[in-house]
Amino acid sequence: MIKVSIVGVTGYVGLELLRLLQTHPEVEIKHLLSRSQPGEKIADLYPQFAGSALAEIKLESYEDTDLTDSDLVFTALPHGVSQREVAKIYKQGIKVIDMSGDYRYGDIDVYESWYKLKHEYPELAREAVYGLVEVNREKIKKARLVANPGCYVTASLLALIPVVEKGIINLDNIIIDAKSGVSGAGKSLKEDFLYNEVNENFKAYGVAGHRHTSEIEYVLEEFAGREVKLTFTPHLLPLKRGILATIYADLVSEIDEGEVIEMYREYYAGEAFVQILGDKLPELKYVVGTNNCQIGLKYDKRTGKLIIISVIDNLVKGAAGQAIQNMNLLFGLEETTGLNNTAFYP
Amino acid sequence: MIKVSIVGVTGYVGLELLRLLQTHPEVEIKHLLSRSQPGEKIADLYPQFAGSALAEIKLESYEDTDLTDSDLVFTALPHGVSQREVAKIYKQGIKVIDMSGDYRYGDIDVYESWYKLKHEYPELAREAVYGLVEVNREKIKKARLVANPGCYVTASLLALIPVVEKGIINLDNIIIDAKSGVSGAGKSLKEDFLYNEVNENFKAYGVAGHRHTSEIEYVLEEFAGREVKLTFTPHLLPLKRGILATIYADLVSEIDEGEVIEMYREYYAGEAFVQILGDKLPELKYVVGTNNCQIGLKYDKRTGKLIIISVIDNLVKGAAGQAIQNMNLLFGLEETTGLNNTAFYP
Amino acid sequence: MIKVSIVGVTGYVGLELLRLLQTHPEVEIKHLLSRSQPGEKIADLYPQFAGSALAEIKLESYEDTDLTDSDLVFTALPHGVSQREVAKIYKQGIKVIDMSGDYRYGDIDVYESWYKLKHEYPELAREAVYGLVEVNREKIKKARLVANPGCYVTASLLALIPVVEKGIINLDNIIIDAKSGVSGAGKSLKEDFLYNEVNENFKAYGVAGHRHTSEIEYVLEEFAGREVKLTFTPHLLPLKRGILATIYADLVSEIDEGEVIEMYREYYAGEAFVQILGDKLPELKYVVGTNNCQIGLKYDKRTGKLIIISVIDNLVKGAAGQAIQNMNLLFGLEETTGLNNTAFYP
Amino acid sequence: MIKVSIVGVTGYVGLELLRLLQTHPEVEIKHLLSRSQPGEKIADLYPQFAGSALAEIKLESYEDTDLTDSDLVFTALPHGVSQREVAKIYKQGIKVIDMSGDYRYGDIDVYESWYKLKHEYPELAREAVYGLVEVNREKIKKARLVANPGCYVTASLLALIPVVEKGIINLDNIIIDAKSGVSGAGKSLKEDFLYNEVNENFKAYGVAGHRHTSEIEYVLEEFAGREVKLTFTPHLLPLKRGILATIYADLVSEIDEGEVIEMYREYYAGEAFVQILGDKLPELKYVVGTNNCQIGLKYDKRTGKLIIISVIDNLVKGAAGQAIQNMNLLFGLEETTGLNNTAFYP
Repeated sequence: MIKVSIVGVTGYVGLELLRLLQTHPEVEIKHLLSRSQPGEKIADLYPQFAGSALAEIKLESYEDTDLTDSDLVFTALPHGVSQREVAKIYKQGIKVIDMSGDYRYGDIDVYESWYKLKHEYPELAREAVYGLVEVNREKIKKARLVANPGCYVTASLLALIPVVEKGIINLDNIIIDAKSGVSGAGKSLKEDFLYNEVNENFKAYGVAGHRHTSEIEYVLEEFAGREVKLTFTPHLLPLKRGILATIYADLVSEIDEGEVIEMYREYYAGEAFVQILGDKLPELKYVVGTNNCQIGLKYDKRTGKLIIISVIDNLVKGAAGQAIQNMNLLFGLEETTGLNNTAFYP
Repeated sequence: MIKVSIVGVTGYVGLELLRLLQTHPEVEIKHLLSRSQPGEKIADLYPQFAGSALAEIKLESYEDTDLTDSDLVFTALPHGVSQREVAKIYKQGIKVIDMSGDYRYGDIDVYESWYKLKHEYPELAREAVYGLVEVNREKIKKARLVANPGCYVTASLLALIPVVEKGIINLDNIIIDAKSGVSGAGKSLKEDFLYNEVNENFKAYGVAGHRHTSEIEYVLEEFAGREVKLTFTPHLLPLKRGILATIYADLVSEIDEGEVIEMYREYYAGEAFVQILGDKLPELKYVVGTNNCQIGLKYDKRTGKLIIISVIDNLVKGAAGQAIQNMNLLFGLEETTGLNNTAFYP
Repeated sequence: MIKVSIVGVTGYVGLELLRLLQTHPEVEIKHLLSRSQPGEKIADLYPQFAGSALAEIKLESYEDTDLTDSDLVFTALPHGVSQREVAKIYKQGIKVIDMSGDYRYGDIDVYESWYKLKHEYPELAREAVYGLVEVNREKIKKARLVANPGCYVTASLLALIPVVEKGIINLDNIIIDAKSGVSGAGKSLKEDFLYNEVNENFKAYGVAGHRHTSEIEYVLEEFAGREVKLTFTPHLLPLKRGILATIYADLVSEIDEGEVIEMYREYYAGEAFVQILGDKLPELKYVVGTNNCQIGLKYDKRTGKLIIISVIDNLVKGAAGQAIQNMNLLFGLEETTGLNNTAFYP
Repeated sequence: MIKVSIVGVTGYVGLELLRLLQTHPEVEIKHLLSRSQPGEKIADLYPQFAGSALAEIKLESYEDTDLTDSDLVFTALPHGVSQREVAKIYKQGIKVIDMSGDYRYGDIDVYESWYKLKHEYPELAREAVYGLVEVNREKIKKARLVANPGCYVTASLLALIPVVEKGIINLDNIIIDAKSGVSGAGKSLKEDFLYNEVNENFKAYGVAGHRHTSEIEYVLEEFAGREVKLTFTPHLLPLKRGILATIYADLVSEIDEGEVIEMYREYYAGEAFVQILGDKLPELKYVVGTNNCQIGLKYDKRTGKLIIISVIDNLVKGAAGQAIQNMNLLFGLEETTGLNNTAFYP
């Protein structure tokens, strides 16, 4: 059994980790750390755990908890805050999977310019392995610190890497029009996220400046071998979970829709969590609650645009599920262990 | 491995059975029968199964399928239709768990007067065992045909049986004000269930005449040892899954809130799927996606009313999950096998 | 033109007043007071006003604004806070319509015991007229201070007054099972009202102790000529606007469903804002956005229960619309002026 | 008073026309035609009209109704069906505002190739005036047949015409990523539009082939003076009303964000129903229920993209409201008559 602790368990990502780990056959929960509510039983705060084996576990404080009996710690903290907590745990020789943006950039200049924060642990940032399993599997297996990718980023990268790597799209004219459910914003007590403000509403936000732009570009540049500047526009959907990215790119190669679809099928052959639906387009409901990313493709002959639709659950493949996929790799388990459920319907 | 087939797999209950059975460690799916779409692959119709082991399974027709290689068949059909299909399968010596109302009444007069249908198999109706596990466990273990309880009925009975059996409420003044998500209506193509008609709307329906009234009364009478006539009012919530029943009853015994709560805790001690939250009241989100029933209680001293709140997921504890709980019993498995997940949050 | 000011304009009720008054042909807006955002233009904060005649109006502070050029002030403030603000304005000889609970009880003992607050202006509380127009029209016409009824209270009273006044129900066994949209909670920044907590969820709250219980009983007692103790259970619907109350009462008179319906039709004959749908039951969507209350009735012969369904928009007939109906009366206008719109559909 | 009839009143657009016309001070309703439910009272089918002056109006059949006492008929019919009905009414000398796509193209070749239908009335199609008031006001005033623009088209054209006319964007690389509420699909009884399929879901549809592409291009070409080929991708939002279009275009002129915003402000100066929010981006809730189109703009210096966000209510500015705006023009009324309400909030 892997001994696992979670730091920051009462946020949506922390709780989703707990939900998924609760049925993971190879995991034993050691500590659940919470700054705001130490001492409380998890099931008193979150009665969905009342019937589970975790019901009696009490949250613990950051200060008084010795994590050294853990094989692995998940840190589910805001960026900035995560830098130090990760470093502290890492130095105790414990493996860490970090859910924040703090360790996703080996080049901390990019981090510092987009996050407007100083990075206090540049060496650790360089050592961290980027946890997008489908393209980074071998490095992850040997990692001690995994930086779990951002949610928008996961949906975008899995959709774009095949064509970027093959060099068949124009890298100067990529547009990612992305739409996310409200859980992507975390449990923030802001007026913008009140039910009355969100239901029957829809809006764009963070236009021309969202931080995930830099993470998408940063990773794509590795595959492109050159600079990538793209347009990324996030929107807030009136729903709880899920990201759908509609991606527009100019095909520069003479290739038809069927060939592109075939290329994606080959690229992701054998991947448990990526399904290429082809010209049938994926919908959020096909993946919500699961670790799957589904991708559909259309080629618009009139305009030369390739339109790629990619869907994930932002809290699973975009956060907690991908983190567990990383954990499975780190500890030599079957990658799908604890993650092979099917989306709710309806 | 239990060899299992599903008749009527493309309805919401059939698909929910499939979703839950897909991760059940002791089940092997044999046949998926569908009148409307035989020959299609399940994952082509329902891409949420695209990444699963079931992806390549094809739906089969009723006529051409030999079910005798199955240990158990779930029938997820409309009432009326189910009568004959169940009888046909039963006669082949296969165990059946029926999701319809057709075999829930040993006394077919009650069935016939509320369902306005003739029952063609009265002997089989008498033989069928009512599948409310928490109060009928021993009989179910030996059953060959289990009638899975109705969704409203499950939420109502688990909330009422303790006080009815103890005789501490007035049996002539029980009110069940119940609210259900839209999936309770099944996949019917009716204007009433269009998104535009349901969102930001709320209504009562079937007032003073809903069939589940009779099923609740029929079972309570066993525990009361006398006639029970109650008022049951269903409402349609603008959400997909979940039933919350607010139940009003006059306490006839001198007993305080804490004692009633304690009584419920004792009644359901050891039950894996019933949690008594006490004076903290349960919400739908604590149980959606799980086989749990959560119950909270308040006593209003000013009016002498006991107010019981009971919540379930209508498709899980109210249908497919309870059916699998029954299956586990029928085949000597741990009752919670395949059913120990935690509700989504958020 | 009636010169109108609003104190507390940035809450949901204040903004709904503004929305409705904006198209009222006999109203001129003088001052919009806001404690939190004085100096801001209304359309900069709430761009829905960008295209309107009000776009350029600036919010003003409480301290620096002289309201004496107003014929009428609407106070849309939390209870407790409202006591003093109302008294201050009233003493300047300006008519006031107060949206809070502070002036709804002539008997301040009832107020003080349910609101857990001292009332500093008992004489003013006795002078205030309760603004439920359909049953209090003549007194309102002569009032200088109108206490606008609560939202749950309006839906409940209009449904119950006819049978209470006629004496044909048992006054000791009334149950009001009420369900409200989230806007009823106001714009509070509480976790409970976040989108992620509300969507696909449903719950009861304030069971056996909600303040509106006292207001319903207080008014019904006038019509009953005796004490009334009833059970009132509010629930939170995953929708923005609307209240539906399902009311259960024992008919004590030998009377059939048709006769009760006819009695309601006669009772509300000539009322512009109350529609008796008869045995067709009202839905929220029939009234949202309007000042209408729609009522439907069923008699359950099996149990002797009369089931009354009453629906309103909590922000219109339950708050701002009813306040404008009161204003129309106070200033001798046609009662429906500015209020004769139809509900959105879909 | 303008004497008005509606053909096809029971669809969402027909009912929205009725809702808006009900409070229009210069309109008298003559006939409401319905193929499916002639003989029924409108308020029996749609109880939201129960309290209104229209409550007693009966629907009439197409065959037996003489429309010649009408000054104007609105036709709210599916495309294809509308061709003939419009022609029939037009020939009786009655003015017509048609809500379908049938008369929006003077060049019927474009219509026939995108709608896959033959146009039987090419002369009438050439005579029809395109009813986008903000850019076609003078022609509309003299029209006898107005083709009311499509909903996606209205949101897109108002956002694009200023920059297309000024020639400051690349016409070969325009992308319109549009998102619509479910009412845009009409009242179709299709599984796709059931509540259970839509809530908590999101998807693209009609990718690389939606008919509105042709209407947008057709009108833009007039302003561009050359061919325009753009990419238009519609998506289905889990909400009832509203369209938000996110539009991407390459600025070819050296101009900064502030100047573009100023250009839009000048272009729409004096327009009652277009508000330029500038770099504050519009949200659906600012316009739902109103005839407004709100536009916001951002310039992404890193990529050279101008991002334009445009929002409307698809049933109002995208259909019934714009039709009434056209009616007001046709009959010499103030353009805003009956249309000056503010959006619901919350």
